Amino acid sequence: MGSNSSRDFGDITIVGVGLLGGSLGLAVKAVRPGARIVGVGHRRSSLDEALAVGAADAVTLDAAEGVKTADLVILCTPVGLFEPLLRQMAPALKPRCVVTDVGSTKAGVVRTAERILRDRAAFVGSHPIAGSERRGVSFARGDLFAGKTCILTPTARTPSAALKRVDRFWNELGMRTVQMTPARHDRALARVSHLPHALAALLVNVQNADDLDLAGTGFIDTTRIAGGDPVMWRDICLTNRKALDTALAGYVKHVDKLRKSLAEGDGAALERIFARAQATRGEMLDKRLRQKRIEG
Amino acid sequence: MGSNSSRDFGDITIVGVGLLGGSLGLAVKAVRPGARIVGVGHRRSSLDEALAVGAADAVTLDAAEGVKTADLVILCTPVGLFEPLLRQMAPALKPRCVVTDVGSTKAGVVRTAERILRDRAAFVGSHPIAGSERRGVSFARGDLFAGKTCILTPTARTPSAALKRVDRFWNELGMRTVQMTPARHDRALARVSHLPHALAALLVNVQNADDLDLAGTGFIDTTRIAGGDPVMWRDICLTNRKALDTALAGYVKHVDKLRKSLAEGDGAALERIFARAQATRGEMLDKRLRQKRIEG
Repeated sequence: MGSNSSRDFGDITIVGVGLLGGSLGLAVKAVRPGARIVGVGHRRSSLDEALAVGAADAVTLDAAEGVKTADLVILCTPVGLFEPLLRQMAPALKPRCVVTDVGSTKAGVVRTAERILRDRAAFVGSHPIAGSERRGVSFARGDLFAGKTCILTPTARTPSAALKRVDRFWNELGMRTVQMTPARHDRALARVSHLPHALAALLVNVQNADDLDLAGTGFIDTTRIAGGDPVMWRDICLTNRKALDTALAGYVKHVDKLRKSLAEGDGAALERIFARAQATRGEMLDKRLRQKRIEG
Repeated sequence: MGSNSSRDFGDITIVGVGLLGGSLGLAVKAVRPGARIVGVGHRRSSLDEALAVGAADAVTLDAAEGVKTADLVILCTPVGLFEPLLRQMAPALKPRCVVTDVGSTKAGVVRTAERILRDRAAFVGSHPIAGSERRGVSFARGDLFAGKTCILTPTARTPSAALKRVDRFWNELGMRTVQMTPARHDRALARVSHLPHALAALLVNVQNADDLDLAGTGFIDTTRIAGGDPVMWRDICLTNRKALDTALAGYVKHVDKLRKSLAEGDGAALERIFARAQATRGEMLDKRLRQKRIEG
């Protein structure tokens, strides 16, 4: 029965075949070679490349055309494009089609999708915590999702059957799934994901060009995510403004405390700050290692 | 003649055989198997391990004993220990011995070393931009320095012969060297190194424990350096208080600007911030790649 339901998603349309969408196509093909994947994009060249690398079986520039046979539609563009795309595709969706996404923010996305899709299709918000600062289908990797976590954000309006099927879809790709409300997702991700990205970008922008020759691997690692797509991150900020601002405000308080310890030359307080960070991060990595051992 | 002068440093004492000191011992042995390396430490177990991995030929817990035959002494402990160690070793130094260090801050270090050593030995401040968040000689690697930059911070009191010899010493290990004043070093490193470390530590500390399960590879990379030794980073902060505070203040201004753009929902401004960071970091990496090609 379980495998029956998951075979329901035989026809999958991926809207936006960049790094994430392309990787998703490759990942689905790897576990379920019989699935038919349609790729929707706004540039012919990306679509051709998606076909060439095997991330899609068919491609189209027309979203409505691309979704009409789909059992599952997955939105993989920057979240700022979800609303117009949903409007274009809504009238073309098959009955019982399920729509999900891979967007990094959820409250606004889920609200918009439920409003536009209404009874035409069930929407299940998804956020697979996987990605790269790289861009484009040429960097797509079928193993991008395995072993990672996918957050599902059902609401009172989410049909439980659709939720189960989407949950199983991500499990099939080797992902752990967790469920929480869209609002809780956005608050948590503001702190663990959007805040780090904003801080990394500002850490680059605060530098004098001359000093960058002196930067070591620490700087390069700390700012890796600042190489991410500006449009995607603009959209993430715009769709999670309040939670990100709260995270930034909380962060500035920590900066102020550090500056106070510096001003007072309080070595013990400074050591405590660094020791706490070292311990917390160490425990986090240990926990992940244990999880991997259990699952592997 | 060049090789003569550099052969002068036949007898080298490394004070502090942790990850950096141990790596230095291995690196010297790799390029100059005939060099004699004495390791000084405060724990028997680290000294035994330094011997076992071949990072030192002889070891001692006694700094004065350890330096007495040295042509070159390299301080590799946290900078907070430099002053007592220099006091212990100063009376035992051979005439014409040169002392250098690998400390991450320079103005205070150079001032202290010049004051304590006076005419007993020349001091040349060094900062090889190489390291790891790991700790201990068991993580030592002989290739830690090759291809990286070492900053030398001579003053009006630095004998030019000693400066040349230390410069050549780092070149021998495959390092590019640049020279600047201790004050300029500390201002630049406050921004490109100490600031990233402080921000990474605070980024860990601001998190709710529950959320850490949701953190992706972006968070893990951005906070890698927060795994660094708290005592070392306490000392770096304490010996570069003013420049680090200035860097933090400048950073908070960038945070405030970002928050303003968020509050106004100014997508164009947000995109500019992320695009600038992406471009600057991309140019920096391109430049390094070109340098590697030229040198390699």
